[in-house]
Amino acid sequence: MALNKEEMSEKVLAIAETLLNEGGMDNLKARTIAEQAGISVGSVYNLFADLDEVHRAVNMRLLDRLGVAGLTAMADLERQGVSDVEHRILAMAAAYVRFVEAHPGSWPALLAFNRRRATRPGPDSYQARLDELFDIVAGVLKAGNFELDDDRRALAARALWSSVHGIVTSGYVAKSDSRQADEIWQQIELLVGVFVKGLERGGAFAHARTKPI
Amino acid sequence: MALNKEEMSEKVLAIAETLLNEGGMDNLKARTIAEQAGISVGSVYNLFADLDEVHRAVNMRLLDRLGVAGLTAMADLERQGVSDVEHRILAMAAAYVRFVEAHPGSWPALLAFNRRRATRPGPDSYQARLDELFDIVAGVLKAGNFELDDDRRALAARALWSSVHGIVTSGYVAKSDSRQADEIWQQIELLVGVFVKGLERGGAFAHARTKPI
Repeated sequence: MALNKEEMSEKVLAIAETLLNEGGMDNLKARTIAEQAGISVGSVYNLFADLDEVHRAVNMRLLDRLGVAGLTAMADLERQGVSDVEHRILAMAAAYVRFVEAHPGSWPALLAFNRRRATRPGPDSYQARLDELFDIVAGVLKAGNFELDDDRRALAARALWSSVHGIVTSGYVAKSDSRQADEIWQQIELLVGVFVKGLERGGAFAHARTKPI
Repeated sequence: MALNKEEMSEKVLAIAETLLNEGGMDNLKARTIAEQAGISVGSVYNLFADLDEVHRAVNMRLLDRLGVAGLTAMADLERQGVSDVEHRILAMAAAYVRFVEAHPGSWPALLAFNRRRATRPGPDSYQARLDELFDIVAGVLKAGNFELDDDRRALAARALWSSVHGIVTSGYVAKSDSRQADEIWQQIELLVGVFVKGLERGGAFAHARTKPI
């Protein structure tokens, strides 16, 4: 039975995601998608204006999945009655580590795509999805009752996110994959532990400093 | 007057670095290097075994330059009599921000190269150079007299470095370049301020936690 337009779009996106995950942006080709979907190249372009549109749609799926991973991690801790801020931030970080590991090609391709192409405004944009993720972290920080107004809390959430992202992807190379994973986790644990202690001490309201750049 | 072998190697590396900076790894081609250096492709391969060797040598130059930038920033503060840890870490971070801005193509290419190819052991390796950079940060932390043994201090230095790196390159996209630069600096300032406050509180010796991944 032939797939309808929506089903075929889903099929194309699933194929595109696998291609991106296996070989990054260079691996995303309309001909390959068409062959694997059993349709013509023209049919791919009936569903999506161009390959950028395909990539954009894959990226939205990835961000949705990451959002679900974060919310699931928080829901798991809530069921377990864990409300400790450090513990909850570490669980978010762990969810991100697992997500990056599960998407070795497609996640770097999303980041590269975002650097090269202008993002689109609007509620469906990349940035709007990312803001939803930052909101989860900000929500955890809010529960900590630190001396943070909404703006500083949102900034702290973005800084924490970027920091964990940097640790996961920094390219610090240990001598084996398992030592690499240990190093990443030790850095995350130290960062989050020290950061939360600093927030408890009101560190986010440190005196403003002249930007030295 | 013809260049000797060392001078020609320098010329090739300068050309290669410009190519990498302008177009990343895909832009590094032996033919282009040869044309711009006014030599044959074969001559390029007499100087370097392959393009990976060229790229490796460019990367070492970049790391050396980054090391000099870090040491210079520290020396400037010492001349000014600034010994405050937060201030000094922020100066290191600012040096890194400037370095990344000055190398928009060649620095991402170094990071990508490092992810794709096995690093080489030995004192000249990428990792050894990076360790020297971490040592500068660890030296600043040591001056803070926090409760940190050598291992935790080195880990804290790597975590700080990775975090700042993540903030600089996270791809958080503001609506304009200047807002982007402001956002990056605000995140760095908050991160470093909170982190140093946390260290003052002994946060790096927070109880060990079971890795939740």
